[in-house]
Amino acid sequence: MENNCQSHPLSLREIQIQDGFWTKEMELVRREVIPYQWEALNDRVPGAAPSYCMHNFKTAVKKNALRKSQGSAFREPSFSKNGWFFQPKDPQHPDEDFYGFVFQDSDFYKWIEAVGYSLTQHPDPQLEAIADEAIEIVCSAQLENGYLDTLYILGGTDKIFTNLRDHHELYCLGHLIEGAVAYYDATGKDRLLRTACRYADFVCETFGPEEGKCHGYPGHEIAEMALMRLYEVTGEDRYLKLAEFFLDARGTRPYYFDREHPENGTARPDELRHFYHQAHLPVRQQEGAVGHAVRAVYLYSGMASVAKQTGDPALLAACERLWNDIVQKKMYITGGIGSTHLGEAFTFAYDLPNDTAYAETCASIGLMFFARRMLEMTPKACYADEMERALYNTVLSGMALDGKSFFYVNPLEVDPEATKKDERKFHVKSVRQKWFGCACCPPNLARLISSIGSYAYTENDSTLFVHLYVGGQITKQTGPRSFSGIVIRSGFPYDGNVSITFPEDTPSFTLALRLPGWCSSYTVTGTKGAVLQEKEGYLYLTKAFSKNDEINLSFPMEPRLVKCNPLVRENVGKVAVTRGPVVYCLESVDNGSNLPLLSVDSTADARTEEITIAGEAVPSLVIPGFREISSAQGQLYVPYTPPKRESVALRFIPYYTWANRGENEMSVWVREA
Amino acid sequence: MENNCQSHPLSLREIQIQDGFWTKEMELVRREVIPYQWEALNDRVPGAAPSYCMHNFKTAVKKNALRKSQGSAFREPSFSKNGWFFQPKDPQHPDEDFYGFVFQDSDFYKWIEAVGYSLTQHPDPQLEAIADEAIEIVCSAQLENGYLDTLYILGGTDKIFTNLRDHHELYCLGHLIEGAVAYYDATGKDRLLRTACRYADFVCETFGPEEGKCHGYPGHEIAEMALMRLYEVTGEDRYLKLAEFFLDARGTRPYYFDREHPENGTARPDELRHFYHQAHLPVRQQEGAVGHAVRAVYLYSGMASVAKQTGDPALLAACERLWNDIVQKKMYITGGIGSTHLGEAFTFAYDLPNDTAYAETCASIGLMFFARRMLEMTPKACYADEMERALYNTVLSGMALDGKSFFYVNPLEVDPEATKKDERKFHVKSVRQKWFGCACCPPNLARLISSIGSYAYTENDSTLFVHLYVGGQITKQTGPRSFSGIVIRSGFPYDGNVSITFPEDTPSFTLALRLPGWCSSYTVTGTKGAVLQEKEGYLYLTKAFSKNDEINLSFPMEPRLVKCNPLVRENVGKVAVTRGPVVYCLESVDNGSNLPLLSVDSTADARTEEITIAGEAVPSLVIPGFREISSAQGQLYVPYTPPKRESVALRFIPYYTWANRGENEMSVWVREA
Repeated sequence: MENNCQSHPLSLREIQIQDGFWTKEMELVRREVIPYQWEALNDRVPGAAPSYCMHNFKTAVKKNALRKSQGSAFREPSFSKNGWFFQPKDPQHPDEDFYGFVFQDSDFYKWIEAVGYSLTQHPDPQLEAIADEAIEIVCSAQLENGYLDTLYILGGTDKIFTNLRDHHELYCLGHLIEGAVAYYDATGKDRLLRTACRYADFVCETFGPEEGKCHGYPGHEIAEMALMRLYEVTGEDRYLKLAEFFLDARGTRPYYFDREHPENGTARPDELRHFYHQAHLPVRQQEGAVGHAVRAVYLYSGMASVAKQTGDPALLAACERLWNDIVQKKMYITGGIGSTHLGEAFTFAYDLPNDTAYAETCASIGLMFFARRMLEMTPKACYADEMERALYNTVLSGMALDGKSFFYVNPLEVDPEATKKDERKFHVKSVRQKWFGCACCPPNLARLISSIGSYAYTENDSTLFVHLYVGGQITKQTGPRSFSGIVIRSGFPYDGNVSITFPEDTPSFTLALRLPGWCSSYTVTGTKGAVLQEKEGYLYLTKAFSKNDEINLSFPMEPRLVKCNPLVRENVGKVAVTRGPVVYCLESVDNGSNLPLLSVDSTADARTEEITIAGEAVPSLVIPGFREISSAQGQLYVPYTPPKRESVALRFIPYYTWANRGENEMSVWVREA
Repeated sequence: MENNCQSHPLSLREIQIQDGFWTKEMELVRREVIPYQWEALNDRVPGAAPSYCMHNFKTAVKKNALRKSQGSAFREPSFSKNGWFFQPKDPQHPDEDFYGFVFQDSDFYKWIEAVGYSLTQHPDPQLEAIADEAIEIVCSAQLENGYLDTLYILGGTDKIFTNLRDHHELYCLGHLIEGAVAYYDATGKDRLLRTACRYADFVCETFGPEEGKCHGYPGHEIAEMALMRLYEVTGEDRYLKLAEFFLDARGTRPYYFDREHPENGTARPDELRHFYHQAHLPVRQQEGAVGHAVRAVYLYSGMASVAKQTGDPALLAACERLWNDIVQKKMYITGGIGSTHLGEAFTFAYDLPNDTAYAETCASIGLMFFARRMLEMTPKACYADEMERALYNTVLSGMALDGKSFFYVNPLEVDPEATKKDERKFHVKSVRQKWFGCACCPPNLARLISSIGSYAYTENDSTLFVHLYVGGQITKQTGPRSFSGIVIRSGFPYDGNVSITFPEDTPSFTLALRLPGWCSSYTVTGTKGAVLQEKEGYLYLTKAFSKNDEINLSFPMEPRLVKCNPLVRENVGKVAVTRGPVVYCLESVDNGSNLPLLSVDSTADARTEEITIAGEAVPSLVIPGFREISSAQGQLYVPYTPPKRESVALRFIPYYTWANRGENEMSVWVREA
């Protein structure tokens, strides 16, 4: 039962996104990413390494048929795989074993999730038919007892759940649930949902606090938040209990992963040893974000989902602490998190190097998951601000403007030469890559973008919350209220004008409109007769609307210079440029090479000038600045002379559009002249 | 035969160092480092991991006795060691096998070299007796055929010289020669020198361009320059020929190391694969400094030694190219080289990160080797300037002021927290360490400091070159000239006044006095009747001196701000502070924490103020500057406001004295206000 503050996302079937910005992004996913991904899952992308994802499911189906036909005579292999990735002798003709990454099954689940979301916005019988056929294969791979992970179904079921730390059986469960719920919500078809429930039921029987059950928990979190989603869809209490158990067991002593991996010893201090998996302390005692950043924010999302449901104050307090630790000490201005590629991990407070950043696309997507769940509990604009920051900067940076190539890593400063010659920066790419062996970011982008509506809007019995200004039409014909085709128009992220129109008379309800933290004033019209209240960065507007009523909001989007907390060593003496929710950057294609030579005149005004990047019109910002003229003359070190500089017009482009015009230098933070 | 420009170092027996600065350093080595090192070689340092160095030699002596007594019945083990370091089951009671690093023998050779140098300055019969006894053991470890490396003598001689790339048999030969020559020069005792010649003779028989001989070359260079030293001492042409062969063979195709290690395949592009060992191209074709920095400068030193002897113009041209590549593109202002800990290696032009620098002490010592050899060929102050830069900054930084602890890595910016929490900086230490398992830097420092006279002075038939102003007395009673007790007094590195006095009438000769590149003017007195010429940064002064003649030189040492070539991204907008040859730095113990908040007022004058660091008086520099006052208030990102700052007096200390007052932040490059 939600209290008055709490809310939940609308079903995507209730929202039709029609937005100058997002419709195009969603079409890219629908037209480019989803079809490409399907080819990749089936190892049909010329030149790309096979994924073996559907191969594994199909092989499992065959093996299950053998199991059934041979009964007890079936000779089960004994599990002996060791490692993260398995390659057949002949990659083009794999035999009947498991291949690919240990978590390869999840690629299909992420794909079907994106397909589900996409179908809510754009019905596509052909795609749906492909999906149904694939679902049939996947469901047939499930064992009689409900277990479903082809790594062990093919490799040997004697060792299932014996390597929770490294193998991703519970991670795959989580993605299976997410995909199944999305597809069910979109199509009403429950074939995959029933399979997900059967696997979840098997896990419920296997794991739990009771004696004789396994007391382990996922090495890579996601099951926690996914089980909460399954609980919401099915109402089955056991899924909530399992999610709670996974949270409660995590980080307790003796450490489960130590018992599971005695070979690793206990050489590193107790807690550090388990940072990577956020398994160093019971979750309610965790003070700061640590370890693998994607795992971390997936865990925190699960914690927030459970806290919302149970009202557990210690769990909520932990979520708030972890949130604050991230956004006040460990987050790039682009919403990137995870400062180091070593373990794709959080490091320590204020350690935010620009040129060696990891800032994985998936981690920022996970930060959005966490933010949305915090908003569901507590509608404060600070959560929505950071959700929006992650979205319009690091998340979008992950995909090229043509939807055909992707970044895992989203640095804030790139010198292409260094990414090729300095091993410490080999993880940084200066051009987006076609696809990845470890295909996590592209499908994660696909499912996020396709479901953008569920981040923009949440509701409860009295209130419709608008967290992100994404245009569309909301039609709600069930539940305590009905919105008949409320139309939201938005110029975001480049124009701060928003209108909300009511094509029909609508009984009194509350609209909670986010007031972005990046603007210090706003105007609102059309509020005649409404009860207005500003609270925690939301404008609550209660009114019975008449046909053709229109509310107009305007958020000024002048270019702004931003300073960084000086405890971030790299950014002292530098500024960043933002406009609305968008962070800007310099590219050398506009500004000449050696970007560090440039500085911004912080007293000058910026001018907006539209330019075309990869066929897309975007507002660039032109700001007066300077280029240092070197007196070095080929020497490394020269006696000091007052710096000489020439005036230049610096052109900044939206960060997420960088690296769409070939390889070149990029920098977000620029010296202040 | 040297031409008029060429010169060679004086014998240390002809120089008695008496210097306000260097006598203390040499005494530290004599009193602290040499005795400590002897204990370490014998595994008698409480709490330190055993080195097994003398253990290995003693065990080899026993095994040789068995070989002799048992003749053909001796059961030679078959070599099977694989790796870099070998540890006995019980570290306190090793059995009769080889233990420690594969290059562990060289620890003794470095020690005996330092002992030899030290004895020239401070006779010590007790130390000499210990040395003689140890030499007897080492020489008795030699095989009948002259081979001497305990790794294979103990491990099995069937595989000697089969892993030139990784095992250090020829490296140990090089250090054996250096140690043997030094000890012979100091004491006249040739026991170790004869052993070195026998090993060198065995290598001459084994390696060479002739059919049937091994065509390999050292994986870790040093034999090249050492063989040249042996050639100079013995006059035996075969040592010159062997040095030439090692240079000529290096980098030719097919690559020797590929044939030696077919298991490694040829996956990386041809040349890159061999960068680490500078074996990517024939040495005369090498354009830039690459790979492991110590190996690189040891190789280039060998090339310079051979070029000087043979006059080979292509070899000289390569030396000049490689030198320029280092000092114009790949050297820190402290004379540190090797920007990355990954391979302890050079990276690419202008890649000089301050906080992840490697800048190994040994590499800067090697840069001094290279510089001295370039000076021997071509007396240009530019070589001496960089030799001096390396010496007074990175080299001295390697040792604590009390001589009891050491840095391998000499960064230009340190945040102690980052060195503990950021894996990318784990190689950076914020306090010097007692001793190292891989004991290369401390003994290298010991041999360098003890032989400082041979870097300060070189000579030829007509000229005495003064490259570094190190005080002492030069007495030369052999050769074409005699200097009877010329006394040089110097206030370096903190006072630029130098005097040279002649206690006796001295027949006409030329003094070549270096004019440091860091001062733009100088004064000289006492030149009456002299023929003077300035050339390539040296003042040539020819005169017959009378008793009590005195020449006085004065080089102004005002504090200077230095700018870096802006292609070094990290240093744009920053300045460094120097005074004479000494680079200065900020420490937070003087300036408060968060050093990046500080900036220097480049228009203000510096004031010299003596302070005491670890009991030693050093001139600090006090320069007006600013501390930025943050408006961040606990937030990571805040709207721009003009920077607020308070005026502060920044205190800079000599870089080499950093980290002598406990753990704290340090920075060489400081923002310019």
